[in-house]
Amino acid sequence: MPLNQQIVLDNRPTGEATASNFMLVASDTPELQDGQVLVRHHYLSLDPYMRGRMNDSKNYAAAQPLGQVMIGGTVGEVVESRSPKFQPGDKVVGMGGWQQYSVVDDKQPGALRKVDTTHVPLSHYLGAVGMPGVTAWYGLVKIIEPQAGQTVVISAATGAVGSAFAALARARGCRTVGIAGGPDKCRYAVDELGFDACIDYKLHQDAASLSMAIKVACPKGIDGYFENVGGMVLNAVLPLMNDFGRIAVCGMIAGYDGEPTPITHPALILRSRLKVQGFIVAEHMEVWPDALTELGLLVGSGKLRPRETVAHGLEAAPEAFLGLLKGKNFGKQLVKLI
Amino acid sequence: MPLNQQIVLDNRPTGEATASNFMLVASDTPELQDGQVLVRHHYLSLDPYMRGRMNDSKNYAAAQPLGQVMIGGTVGEVVESRSPKFQPGDKVVGMGGWQQYSVVDDKQPGALRKVDTTHVPLSHYLGAVGMPGVTAWYGLVKIIEPQAGQTVVISAATGAVGSAFAALARARGCRTVGIAGGPDKCRYAVDELGFDACIDYKLHQDAASLSMAIKVACPKGIDGYFENVGGMVLNAVLPLMNDFGRIAVCGMIAGYDGEPTPITHPALILRSRLKVQGFIVAEHMEVWPDALTELGLLVGSGKLRPRETVAHGLEAAPEAFLGLLKGKNFGKQLVKLI
Repeated sequence: MPLNQQIVLDNRPTGEATASNFMLVASDTPELQDGQVLVRHHYLSLDPYMRGRMNDSKNYAAAQPLGQVMIGGTVGEVVESRSPKFQPGDKVVGMGGWQQYSVVDDKQPGALRKVDTTHVPLSHYLGAVGMPGVTAWYGLVKIIEPQAGQTVVISAATGAVGSAFAALARARGCRTVGIAGGPDKCRYAVDELGFDACIDYKLHQDAASLSMAIKVACPKGIDGYFENVGGMVLNAVLPLMNDFGRIAVCGMIAGYDGEPTPITHPALILRSRLKVQGFIVAEHMEVWPDALTELGLLVGSGKLRPRETVAHGLEAAPEAFLGLLKGKNFGKQLVKLI
Repeated sequence: MPLNQQIVLDNRPTGEATASNFMLVASDTPELQDGQVLVRHHYLSLDPYMRGRMNDSKNYAAAQPLGQVMIGGTVGEVVESRSPKFQPGDKVVGMGGWQQYSVVDDKQPGALRKVDTTHVPLSHYLGAVGMPGVTAWYGLVKIIEPQAGQTVVISAATGAVGSAFAALARARGCRTVGIAGGPDKCRYAVDELGFDACIDYKLHQDAASLSMAIKVACPKGIDGYFENVGGMVLNAVLPLMNDFGRIAVCGMIAGYDGEPTPITHPALILRSRLKVQGFIVAEHMEVWPDALTELGLLVGSGKLRPRETVAHGLEAAPEAFLGLLKGKNFGKQLVKLI
């Protein structure tokens, strides 16, 4: 059996996560039992939610156990199968974790899914046509529920979720405004992703200044906001929300390191009769088929052309992940393993 | 025509509202035109929302204009009518404002409503069987949507909204916990209003301490929270919310004077996948008939016995209102005018 390199969580961060929280180990892949499949991973997905799992505190999901392989989405190819459901050569998406190979039991529902790479590149099943894409779909369609002509805004606009959000919102006739960090990302958001405007939050020192800039891009106010960030950006958006506006809370990355990121004027929730709702897309599996169908069509037709930032080799994963948390990536952050 | 005493908003508060913001004036009631009715007010309702109207800032409703009669709910009796829809002697509820008489046009939809005082005392149409009761109903039934056996919590528990909330939540089989200020109110909440427990927030200096006390009363966590107050109480409740909990935001009285009352840990909205929703009951007139029917039955059957605090004479209204904002009232705050 092939040797399998793995990255485990060695110790939990105190404050900011660092590379020393992770450890690279290696072991033989085990012999397959009946019903099992050996998958060789081509790409590992890096996502902000993983930072939350590294903490031991009450969180929206189980903490990542110490000494075990870091959780994570993967795409790859079946290289050996003792299951009638999978053949060597099948392209599959799963939750293989930060390692080169994984063994999957075919009785575990949804653990491994065959995908078609005719019109959609394999790596996109970790991004636009995967969990991040469905995340954008759920927040937009099920929580924001926009009408044509309404204005929707998203933070972390050029990430995997933001890219999909732009295409989905444009398809619904919305004015679509992004918030991102730096002139390159903002130009890319408008030129490539189809945002009507994109605000560079790094040009602003406080929520009031950022709020004024967003207001210029949203002359009719904001009807729906997709929150990936929290902190200053949320405080800048809140006063601009129209009556009966909806805020889908998907991420509060600004707060993962433990520093408080208060909502300074929560009375705005009452004054504008807002709905503010947190969600985790993995808890809404019922929407995945519809969402993936729409996202696949958008990618296949070229209306959604997500960018990827690719790190090479498993050992590069920790630094790439830490860079993602600081916004250094451009589009979907992947690690190419083969 | 009778002389009509009125209280107008003379100037806007800077910070805390004071009696000097109001002015007592008097004028003759006008001659009735065709379709008009003259109502003599028996009771004036005082409600926290009025404080918001006194500000000039963006608010959830139009600002109270300076120099005009303060807005407010009233119950009274028709004393003169040039409308076929109303007869002298009819008991009516309306928005007559802080004055002894009002002239109402019968073409204004919903402006004046005849009520039956056989089983329900007239004053209760300003409280349990009026706007505050429907407010409790909407937040509980439409936003919190509780299941039997779930735990629901309300702040300002012994006020007009809280009293109705307790009866409505008990009727749905919920564990019902109140938060109020002082031992007398907490005893009353449990002994008279039927709360399963009531926490005295005045015993606690910070959110962490208050949170521990609420936790003891809510051993299974909190599924629904009805927010009348904001500030420290909201920060104490948030960490106790169960996954998929609902928070109906009805009041943020702690913030009306302009001081900031941040939500210190908004990431909890994501971690517990909460829905936080602001509402104004006047925007949901479609629920009023159902809500008033249930509330009338609860009062008629003695399951809801709301307490009232009654000030006497129009000139007593400003001080009574300022006391209400400080929690000095006990149950529904009224001004008796006759």
